[in-house]
Amino acid sequence: MTLTTDTRFTGTRPVDRYPTRTAEPLAPFARSEPTVWGGVCGPIDPATLAAHDTHGYSRYDGLLSPAEVATFRAELDRLATDEAVRADERTVVERASAEVRSIFEVHRTSELIAELVRDPRVLDRARQVLGSEVYVHQSRVNYMPGFQGKGLYWHSDFETWHAEDGMPLLRAVSMSIALTDNYPFNGGLMVLPGSQRTFVPCVGETPAEHYKASLTEQEIGVPSRAALSRLAAEHGVDQFTGTAGSALLFDSNLVHGSGNNITPFPRSNIFVVFNSVDNALVEPYAAAAPRPGFIAARTAEPLVR
Amino acid sequence: MTLTTDTRFTGTRPVDRYPTRTAEPLAPFARSEPTVWGGVCGPIDPATLAAHDTHGYSRYDGLLSPAEVATFRAELDRLATDEAVRADERTVVERASAEVRSIFEVHRTSELIAELVRDPRVLDRARQVLGSEVYVHQSRVNYMPGFQGKGLYWHSDFETWHAEDGMPLLRAVSMSIALTDNYPFNGGLMVLPGSQRTFVPCVGETPAEHYKASLTEQEIGVPSRAALSRLAAEHGVDQFTGTAGSALLFDSNLVHGSGNNITPFPRSNIFVVFNSVDNALVEPYAAAAPRPGFIAARTAEPLVR
Repeated sequence: MTLTTDTRFTGTRPVDRYPTRTAEPLAPFARSEPTVWGGVCGPIDPATLAAHDTHGYSRYDGLLSPAEVATFRAELDRLATDEAVRADERTVVERASAEVRSIFEVHRTSELIAELVRDPRVLDRARQVLGSEVYVHQSRVNYMPGFQGKGLYWHSDFETWHAEDGMPLLRAVSMSIALTDNYPFNGGLMVLPGSQRTFVPCVGETPAEHYKASLTEQEIGVPSRAALSRLAAEHGVDQFTGTAGSALLFDSNLVHGSGNNITPFPRSNIFVVFNSVDNALVEPYAAAAPRPGFIAARTAEPLVR
Repeated sequence: MTLTTDTRFTGTRPVDRYPTRTAEPLAPFARSEPTVWGGVCGPIDPATLAAHDTHGYSRYDGLLSPAEVATFRAELDRLATDEAVRADERTVVERASAEVRSIFEVHRTSELIAELVRDPRVLDRARQVLGSEVYVHQSRVNYMPGFQGKGLYWHSDFETWHAEDGMPLLRAVSMSIALTDNYPFNGGLMVLPGSQRTFVPCVGETPAEHYKASLTEQEIGVPSRAALSRLAAEHGVDQFTGTAGSALLFDSNLVHGSGNNITPFPRSNIFVVFNSVDNALVEPYAAAAPRPGFIAARTAEPLVR
């Protein structure tokens, strides 16, 4: 099904095509929008683009060269040890260990990462999938330690972005760029391939300032076990493995999660969410107030090189 | 180095070759005993036996047929739902979920598993590696749920058996038989191949009745991060994957652990520890009292078919 303007907007606010955070469970249903919008040329070859459409993700080995990986790792080290960055509200510091876990809106604070989100290898892939100009909905760098790395339970990012940020439609894509080697056993991303085609409404009202808890452990906005079992039985589980510099481009509604990491091998990555400029945020669909702009950009300025 | 009687025994109690649970850290050191004792023929071919000697483990795909897997899964279902079994002290029931997680000494309570530990495919492999008659030091069945399966941090089983059960020397081997498919992503066993050649003394006194806590989460008797990093850098991490019916035979000192399991795919297995009859337990080396006999058999009657 493709979009028509008359069903998409009622006045200035789009209708809620993706009801979630309800008191009573709603059945999962097929998404309205395509996974690959197309119509914009770019670096993704047709076979890979078709596979992305089917599975909801595509992988690019060696997107960054080893020298670039070294440069970005040094940048992450610099950021994590900068006192001003540590004190910034956009930085998530783990209480117990006093270690930096994530830095948000990093494309506005790091020149290197500002360049990276405009790099054709990154930006043009997002444009190609979404078929339009795009902007950065969210950017962050993640530092995941070894020995005690915590995982993240299954979820669709779009479910949260729709409920808590007011993202109207399924027209966003994320790129995760690994700066360390991802093995099958050190807590890397797991995805349910093809799950992006189904929207799974979640049960439960959004608590106030939910984002402060949900960035470490999500309890509201997670699919039911029955829905996860059906999706996993149908599609299986794929893991994002590969050497440092590999990238995963994945649909905003692809159900994903990660296990914990007891191995000595830490992980770090750069994570950028691109949203279509035609899918700018409105008021949240299922939260009292939108999350801060550094977690979900409230303006939709197209990225230019 | 091979054993000589005069260094092995001082009166009736062997000297402590493997000091651990000390107040101050001790450096890791090479083990005294071989991994493969040999001299007894059996079903393991020479190349596999040599690999077992090097890596500390060997894998046997399809050790049980699909029909046998079905039989044992039905037996596990029967045991987990039997009220008398649930009430038995040898059964570990998770408090929060009221679900059975493990049943110990199951080779004495299940006829099918009593047969299995005497099955030549199982028993003769243990005899062949240990080069002697063997007995069951511990047996159990494990039920690991999906979605919320907890992992177990890195450890050497022997470190615990030596400290808390009084197992004198490194002459025991474990077999884990998978009754469900092991994927790389559902919390299966991870091992540090070759780590069985190094004994890693652990820091910290054994608390009273430590086994009651250590069966779910081990804090005492775990190797230091520095030791784990060295072992993992040297040997890497191997995962025990394979279809239901596959078996892993591994040395008592092989460092292993498991991640958590958020996938919908549960795991269950049968776990049997064989100890050489020439390595019978003495008083614990680093605990006030030995653990109960259902966790660590205090008599060393050789298994007969």
